[in-house]
Amino acid sequence: MDRGLNGYYFEELEAGMSASFAKTVTEADIFAFAGLSGDFNPVHINEEYAAASMFKGRIAHGMLSAAFISTLLGMKLPGPGCVYVSQSLKFKAPVRIGDTVNAEAEVLSVNPEKKFVTMKTLCKVAGKAVIEGEAVLMVPSRP
Amino acid sequence: MDRGLNGYYFEELEAGMSASFAKTVTEADIFAFAGLSGDFNPVHINEEYAAASMFKGRIAHGMLSAAFISTLLGMKLPGPGCVYVSQSLKFKAPVRIGDTVNAEAEVLSVNPEKKFVTMKTLCKVAGKAVIEGEAVLMVPSRP
Amino acid sequence: MDRGLNGYYFEELEAGMSASFAKTVTEADIFAFAGLSGDFNPVHINEEYAAASMFKGRIAHGMLSAAFISTLLGMKLPGPGCVYVSQSLKFKAPVRIGDTVNAEAEVLSVNPEKKFVTMKTLCKVAGKAVIEGEAVLMVPSRP
Amino acid sequence: MDRGLNGYYFEELEAGMSASFAKTVTEADIFAFAGLSGDFNPVHINEEYAAASMFKGRIAHGMLSAAFISTLLGMKLPGPGCVYVSQSLKFKAPVRIGDTVNAEAEVLSVNPEKKFVTMKTLCKVAGKAVIEGEAVLMVPSRP
Repeated sequence: MDRGLNGYYFEELEAGMSASFAKTVTEADIFAFAGLSGDFNPVHINEEYAAASMFKGRIAHGMLSAAFISTLLGMKLPGPGCVYVSQSLKFKAPVRIGDTVNAEAEVLSVNPEKKFVTMKTLCKVAGKAVIEGEAVLMVPSRP
Repeated sequence: MDRGLNGYYFEELEAGMSASFAKTVTEADIFAFAGLSGDFNPVHINEEYAAASMFKGRIAHGMLSAAFISTLLGMKLPGPGCVYVSQSLKFKAPVRIGDTVNAEAEVLSVNPEKKFVTMKTLCKVAGKAVIEGEAVLMVPSRP
Repeated sequence: MDRGLNGYYFEELEAGMSASFAKTVTEADIFAFAGLSGDFNPVHINEEYAAASMFKGRIAHGMLSAAFISTLLGMKLPGPGCVYVSQSLKFKAPVRIGDTVNAEAEVLSVNPEKKFVTMKTLCKVAGKAVIEGEAVLMVPSRP
Repeated sequence: MDRGLNGYYFEELEAGMSASFAKTVTEADIFAFAGLSGDFNPVHINEEYAAASMFKGRIAHGMLSAAFISTLLGMKLPGPGCVYVSQSLKFKAPVRIGDTVNAEAEVLSVNPEKKFVTMKTLCKVAGKAVIEGEAVLMVPSRP
């Protein structure tokens, strides 16, 4: 089946399916994210302040790592066509410049009435959880 | 008191305090966010695909609007020094190019034992909710 | 088979397989590309000059559209793990601000000795060819 | 003669003329190029993946170096006013963060009937070829 630019259809999804996306976080990413969001919290963009903080150095915006979850869901599983219903995020540890954030998602359950899929979402750095959470998405049926 | 670059201390926070931040979302913002996150979902960056979708045109990444919540919390209330513990996000409606996203946050409760503050978070466009949710932050005590 | 972050293996590729990627080209993209490449040719970044030129307005850098071919090959087919050997590009028509560039690639032949795959590559705007060409990639064997 | 913003006219070009352009490739360039093109192939943006690959670390997008050829042709020789007809690219070796890419172009032949000029194009890092190829451009006549 040629699905063109579309992702999975609701009928193709089942518990246990999983996918991943990963990106190394650079200093330039953090500054660009500050510029886009307006989040110039000094712990992100002021090395002097950050070095004196409990984090001992600049950390990435939590929402930048959270964005990788959105990338994974919207690009791979379920992929284009799905609609984001909700996302929960528990920030467990900071992400630093140079860390490679591995975003993972796994289908937990599907709700055929609402065409909703519930997914476990996880971001890890070097095998350690940095963000835990769950996402719910509405996925279109096969045409 | 000169608090320098720091925000509110835990002891200064109480239920009902609120703050807001707003930004107009441009086409360039959406493309830059795609570029940072890797989220090239066609509903965001392909006008032909998006025009044929249920959204009838390109929409902003939900996590871009969510980032404005993080900006508000980290910059204004509670402000620099706080640590993001968790955030829930319910995506209620899409944000389009040219929309001004108004992020609002209000203190719901404080937990002196953990130094946690729970906040209601809301993003609106033209008075209509686009993201609802709650945030929990750990806030440092007055030195 | 869980291929993790990897794309197709050489043994999975055969003539006729195809994939596509599309992105709308914005004014911001063109200026960012100029900034990255140093290509400040006035036909790209000077509206007065471009309006007086044979193109009657600014056009995108050909290499920006060519980059979408690379995106398609490196991300989807054959996907991560492949090595770019060569690419030919025939620029057939200009791309303008607001155009959606549809990049398409189709496997023409495979060379099992060299693990090379030859692909037809095409960029179209509104159904009309803007770049034609061929790519050769080396693709890793199934482990 | 004041040629304003224009480059060489066709009648001024002859075999053997040459020019060069060079830029150091930074980590930020690679991430920005990924962001513009959508090419988040992990060999470019995931240091963990890239370190485990045959390249032993992240490499720049081939099309980023190819863009420097376009910069050279469109900015210097023949310069503004020329129209890109075709470009061939043979990728000979990877470009890494911190490498300075030297793009060179030399006129091979001119075709007065079509006003076409054929050029040898070459990108080198530390004296070693990373991209070889040929370009054809249409160049306007002296007014």
